Amino acid sequence: MNYLSMSGEELKEEREKLLSQFEKYKKKELKLDMSRGKPCVEQLDISEDMLKTISCNEDCFTKKGFDCRNYGLVDGLDSAKELFGEILGIAAGQIIVGGNSSLNLMYDAVTRCLLYGVVGGTGPWIKADSVKFLCPVPGYDRHFGICQSLGIEMVNVPMTKDGPDMDIVEELVKDKAVKGIWCVPKYSNPDGITYSDETVRRFANLKPASPDFRIFWDNAYCVHDLNDDGDVLLNILDECEKAKNPNLPFVFTSTSKITYPGSGVSVVGASKENIAQIKSIMQMQTIGHDKMNMLRHMKYFGSADGMKTYMKKHAEILRPKFELVLNELEKEFKDNEIAQWKSPKGGYFISFNVLSGCAKKTVQLAKDLGVVLTEAGATFPYKIDPNDTNIRIAPTFPPVSELKSAIEVLCLCTKLSCTEKLLEIS
Amino acid sequence: MNYLSMSGEELKEEREKLLSQFEKYKKKELKLDMSRGKPCVEQLDISEDMLKTISCNEDCFTKKGFDCRNYGLVDGLDSAKELFGEILGIAAGQIIVGGNSSLNLMYDAVTRCLLYGVVGGTGPWIKADSVKFLCPVPGYDRHFGICQSLGIEMVNVPMTKDGPDMDIVEELVKDKAVKGIWCVPKYSNPDGITYSDETVRRFANLKPASPDFRIFWDNAYCVHDLNDDGDVLLNILDECEKAKNPNLPFVFTSTSKITYPGSGVSVVGASKENIAQIKSIMQMQTIGHDKMNMLRHMKYFGSADGMKTYMKKHAEILRPKFELVLNELEKEFKDNEIAQWKSPKGGYFISFNVLSGCAKKTVQLAKDLGVVLTEAGATFPYKIDPNDTNIRIAPTFPPVSELKSAIEVLCLCTKLSCTEKLLEIS
Repeated sequence: MNYLSMSGEELKEEREKLLSQFEKYKKKELKLDMSRGKPCVEQLDISEDMLKTISCNEDCFTKKGFDCRNYGLVDGLDSAKELFGEILGIAAGQIIVGGNSSLNLMYDAVTRCLLYGVVGGTGPWIKADSVKFLCPVPGYDRHFGICQSLGIEMVNVPMTKDGPDMDIVEELVKDKAVKGIWCVPKYSNPDGITYSDETVRRFANLKPASPDFRIFWDNAYCVHDLNDDGDVLLNILDECEKAKNPNLPFVFTSTSKITYPGSGVSVVGASKENIAQIKSIMQMQTIGHDKMNMLRHMKYFGSADGMKTYMKKHAEILRPKFELVLNELEKEFKDNEIAQWKSPKGGYFISFNVLSGCAKKTVQLAKDLGVVLTEAGATFPYKIDPNDTNIRIAPTFPPVSELKSAIEVLCLCTKLSCTEKLLEIS
Repeated sequence: MNYLSMSGEELKEEREKLLSQFEKYKKKELKLDMSRGKPCVEQLDISEDMLKTISCNEDCFTKKGFDCRNYGLVDGLDSAKELFGEILGIAAGQIIVGGNSSLNLMYDAVTRCLLYGVVGGTGPWIKADSVKFLCPVPGYDRHFGICQSLGIEMVNVPMTKDGPDMDIVEELVKDKAVKGIWCVPKYSNPDGITYSDETVRRFANLKPASPDFRIFWDNAYCVHDLNDDGDVLLNILDECEKAKNPNLPFVFTSTSKITYPGSGVSVVGASKENIAQIKSIMQMQTIGHDKMNMLRHMKYFGSADGMKTYMKKHAEILRPKFELVLNELEKEFKDNEIAQWKSPKGGYFISFNVLSGCAKKTVQLAKDLGVVLTEAGATFPYKIDPNDTNIRIAPTFPPVSELKSAIEVLCLCTKLSCTEKLLEIS
């Protein structure tokens, strides 16, 4: 059943059926939340043993005998640098371990650029007439929030199946005001796209007009595969080194979706020069990040392999949820051109595109039925989706039973908003 | 024995004796560190039971059932706001609980001023031609480090026994470029002075030329009394409220010297308007601070009274160390005008002033004997003590046995540097 090839009469008839279903759902008084990329309780429960790794004074020391309770080691524990270095393919000496929020590391990275400037750059960005960031869309709302909060102008770059459209990126970086780009290179938020090798190489070989330009490489989902055949991302730092552009990227990740969203460990990796600059400023900013929590994580994981093995437990919980959503979408929209979506091999989202002009209405209708979705537009800078088409589905948090109801509601509301639209324009 | 009333001959004779003692100490090959205000191992060991407060999944919830492992509550747990509110005399709603570093909260507060401006202010400070901070001296090196790192000009304000010289402060705030002052109002670092009621009231009633002016009130030692008769500090927020200057102060504290220096909980309190502004920016910066660590602290303390009772254990460990240093200073310099010091009723330091021009030399001589003291000058902006007179003694970290040797060395080196100086000028 393809709405796009239906006659006005057929559409009206279909719409009547949908409306009566809508009324039935209304009576159910649902209260479901599919809005945020939050791990579910079962995922949090996995890490219980981490809570037992430090339970007495003797547990507070590193293998080398360092007392993690006290001051010191502003850039984090060596063991943590080594583990995350291995995960990210970055030398331990080029890693700084932060607090519980990689978003905070990114915000701080941007404010450092504004207030101090970057290695080899033109000085504090705040002195520039204009600072622009490229924003692959749809993308992560909190990246855009940082720019908006700090008065950085955002320029949309469309995503392709291989990552951001590099023809456009290469063109836009000719503008000296363009000083950065946000990237979620593996299982991008929300598309679930992993950048192709060519995309990564083209990033590494960028020749931006501004020496200030930096790539904010938020590798949030580096070990977040749903299956054993996860996507493989090329190493941006290695490629930048080869391209003689070593200072171009700042690489971020965290354990927010490995252990605890609120109490994980975050990481930034970069060239030696970049890391030296970050460290020199960071030691004026803080007495150091929470080493007890780093130690807790290190004792728990044991090694990078330990962390990877452990991610399989998350995958087991998440796979059925992703399958449920994808099966439902397939069932409802297989031949119906009003909706398109992607099947990611990892990450936290399913990106769902409805008929142009129908996303806001769909989300509102779902809300009327008690199902909270991510606000339409949230995946774009300034919360403006120019085509009003993208809806971010976050299937991880709700239990499977609730998820089924929520996705049924989403499908119904999509059909409702699209039939309305089609009848309007017919 | 007062060096200042000795003849040249007597001084030379004394100096010979001191030099032979110096040689004896040299042979001991000491390796002692009295440089930083770090809690000692015994103090860290006190908090062992806190490590046991969260050891399984069920322990991760607040009394109200909130799951501290997950996202949410950007401004912290209610229970933590209530406890710290009670400690600081601030309504819970006017408290934000941060991460493990109150220095980081202060750095962030300053960068917010620079990039966003303050409530009722002239806009981002970064746009002003010049930004100056008043720095009561001697003071805390890390406050000064924040200013220096961010290009904020520092202006020395002398300390009196009642706090910063308010005549000078009131005069200096007539300069529009003066936008802030650093205060450690209770047991000031390093003098151990608690601001008098009059000083606090004069702060509250300041009429700065710039509407941007803020008081950075670092109440780091709010519960850090050495005895039951601790100093009592007037409530700056209350006084500012009364003076119709509610937005003037940002109040900071932390548990860095209550539980763990590296893994405590930090706090900022301020007027409702200030807190609303901080929160609105903070939620762009971070997903929230570590609530598991807040919960760990709350379960451990139970209440503000619990925290206060617990501070008595620290006092028991620290009191003998402060007494040892003070007794030794008394013994060596009672009638010798080359040195003055204060006897604080709490905090982490003893401020020791030697003959003008002798601090650097004293610290260097001690270093030659293997005793590391805080760098002379560190207690002043730009690390420049104009009189080269102040030495910060940090007696908390070394064991009592080491502390005794360290302070003996300090006394000897003080005498050596001062006799040298006196012979030079005689």
